[in-house]
Amino acid sequence: MSKALILQTDFGTADGAVSAMYGVAFSVDPELKIFDLTHEIPQYDIWEASYRLIQTVSYWPKGSVFVSVVDPGVGSTRRSIAVETVDGQYIITPDNGTLTHIKKMTGIMAARVIDESVNRLPNSGESYTFHGRDVYVFTGARLAGGVIDFAGVGPQVAVDSVIELPTVSPKKENDVITGTIDVLDVRFGSLWTNISRESFLELGINHGDRVEISIENGTRTLYKNIITYAKSFADVYVGEPLLYVNSLDCMAVAINQGSFARAYNIGTGTSWKLGIRKAPKLVYE
Amino acid sequence: MSKALILQTDFGTADGAVSAMYGVAFSVDPELKIFDLTHEIPQYDIWEASYRLIQTVSYWPKGSVFVSVVDPGVGSTRRSIAVETVDGQYIITPDNGTLTHIKKMTGIMAARVIDESVNRLPNSGESYTFHGRDVYVFTGARLAGGVIDFAGVGPQVAVDSVIELPTVSPKKENDVITGTIDVLDVRFGSLWTNISRESFLELGINHGDRVEISIENGTRTLYKNIITYAKSFADVYVGEPLLYVNSLDCMAVAINQGSFARAYNIGTGTSWKLGIRKAPKLVYE
Amino acid sequence: MSKALILQTDFGTADGAVSAMYGVAFSVDPELKIFDLTHEIPQYDIWEASYRLIQTVSYWPKGSVFVSVVDPGVGSTRRSIAVETVDGQYIITPDNGTLTHIKKMTGIMAARVIDESVNRLPNSGESYTFHGRDVYVFTGARLAGGVIDFAGVGPQVAVDSVIELPTVSPKKENDVITGTIDVLDVRFGSLWTNISRESFLELGINHGDRVEISIENGTRTLYKNIITYAKSFADVYVGEPLLYVNSLDCMAVAINQGSFARAYNIGTGTSWKLGIRKAPKLVYE
Repeated sequence: MSKALILQTDFGTADGAVSAMYGVAFSVDPELKIFDLTHEIPQYDIWEASYRLIQTVSYWPKGSVFVSVVDPGVGSTRRSIAVETVDGQYIITPDNGTLTHIKKMTGIMAARVIDESVNRLPNSGESYTFHGRDVYVFTGARLAGGVIDFAGVGPQVAVDSVIELPTVSPKKENDVITGTIDVLDVRFGSLWTNISRESFLELGINHGDRVEISIENGTRTLYKNIITYAKSFADVYVGEPLLYVNSLDCMAVAINQGSFARAYNIGTGTSWKLGIRKAPKLVYE
Repeated sequence: MSKALILQTDFGTADGAVSAMYGVAFSVDPELKIFDLTHEIPQYDIWEASYRLIQTVSYWPKGSVFVSVVDPGVGSTRRSIAVETVDGQYIITPDNGTLTHIKKMTGIMAARVIDESVNRLPNSGESYTFHGRDVYVFTGARLAGGVIDFAGVGPQVAVDSVIELPTVSPKKENDVITGTIDVLDVRFGSLWTNISRESFLELGINHGDRVEISIENGTRTLYKNIITYAKSFADVYVGEPLLYVNSLDCMAVAINQGSFARAYNIGTGTSWKLGIRKAPKLVYE
Repeated sequence: MSKALILQTDFGTADGAVSAMYGVAFSVDPELKIFDLTHEIPQYDIWEASYRLIQTVSYWPKGSVFVSVVDPGVGSTRRSIAVETVDGQYIITPDNGTLTHIKKMTGIMAARVIDESVNRLPNSGESYTFHGRDVYVFTGARLAGGVIDFAGVGPQVAVDSVIELPTVSPKKENDVITGTIDVLDVRFGSLWTNISRESFLELGINHGDRVEISIENGTRTLYKNIITYAKSFADVYVGEPLLYVNSLDCMAVAINQGSFARAYNIGTGTSWKLGIRKAPKLVYE
């Protein structure tokens, strides 16, 4: 039964680095099915690497092996680990926070530290800067190809010990639910929050209702306006903003055929707060 | 016998959207051969999506399945369709004009509307914004993998009903043939017109002859000059403009190792006209 | 036994050119494993195409077939060739210098000129501008798929006749070793030189030692400073420059989590010299 090997890096595809990783995997097992998650993670951006995994992993079958290499600490003492998710996929990565969302939202069953005395590309001993090629994809290909099983990765370690980046949970106060802007839908400039559809629905808002959106970064308010909660983009005019449920079942804000992020200079991270409440009635006296 | 599944979107590859589509296809059938046309169609640019299909589809064998998702109307009443081309490939896409060139130039044999009660990713019912993942690639993978046949896509509809964007045919007046600039060869800045080699040859021009090229956008003339009709780029100097037959057997204009589009700020679309005539003789009296 | 077919071009992936090449290869043999090296070689940059091959080819198994199309002379009399490397991989390319580094560093066993009377996509005779699709990938797919063997490519030619771009060898004078800056690690802004680790080690410098780096372009000195020779990035502070051994076993200079190339406007090519010496002792009197 074919297992997929899926690669994510911050290397870009302009040079030969990703292709060298493919070559290593193909050399381990020419029958492997090798795919890309993305290689355009912004350099060193562990948070975004973590997010792209939660966006994608669940759409791949049990047994799929992900290799994620965003590795600012290459050559330091940071651990190299492999985990099995609660859903049965494997992820191999430096232990630097890349598993934050997977650990919190999907759950990790078991974690192992890579034993480099076994799982390292032969004759790569003098290279200390490209573990993506020499360690991670080599181990991932061996696991996906059945050369080793999960235990063959190396010694087990506590799931608790897997490093997490700090996150801020959404909270509901009075009739406002506030979350963080976790990531952008890059090409379309939409804001993806960590407010789940479920908790949003507790506000008693229905498709077509008006909502008040406020966006703050630290002490600055960057946006405060009333927009429509729409089922999809086509429910509003071209150029009109909307609140909608994104493909991860969380609340998102966009401009139909425009870029909300660029229009209002919105960024991402735990300092970026987005609040949603039912729109007030406008009463003229 | 292996069938290819080829994906085109305007999603880019910086986030997890394309990889989620790959995961859905792989989950339908791990033996599928999945490839990319491009994911860099400018956002919402249905015309360019249509053009990239005509540029590519005929180089893939009969039975290949294309999935094209440039879908500004996601969630509206626009239909989701699958067509069989006269050459025997399949294309699955929102019915929004993406099939303009294929319908006009290759021809469509039969069209069907996707029956989402059958052809929709299980448990994706609450997601209204990512039909690329939940409907199109799921259906495409089932068709390529033989889970369904073409009839299994859904009810047949008239080929005539497939939506086309407006196009303007080239016309010949006196000794000038005028067409539209349909698309750029993006990286090289060449202008690709809809003037076929065949109709150009009626002007009686041979390789090495000089031609007068004029480019207009509405009432503005942006370029009027005499250049060489060359067999290939190497027939002119580096930095010299040329007229040539492009890889779709249509007339194109370029600067050898430069960018014609950037040099003269040339755009694309039906308002951009390019005229070709035999160069006049220069007579000094 | 599966053979890999790996493609490199300067076409980008925004249009349909690369996908048309994939379609041609898939039509030759649907069981082929087709991969990318990169399609983002800067347009017409033969030197960088040559470098990306040396960076990658050795990580793919014997028998792998590379097709590299950076072809400013398409349509000229430049030859189309296929070579077998000393390590047993094949590379198909216009003979324009793309094999410079492979010839010099890996070595070429044998070279053949493509016989286009056999190895050309049927019915592509009127297209003179897209040999990547009509000749190179068609031939590569036939070789990788076993339709032809290496002799079936066309007549043998002398290895000596394969064109090389000029290179400048590193030289050691007194206690300074000077090389050229051959290429950038694009996304990370590191400078990759042609100074091998071996020849560097003759300076008697150890991990953790300080080195003096000087960078010159023609008569201009762009950088002269003392930095650390580090085992890996994590051995210096974030924002600190370092000298290290890159993934090709050559000496490279970077800023940890910054871009050295952008910080000091450094370019690449044989006019860009980088010198390394042991740092002088600083003596205060």
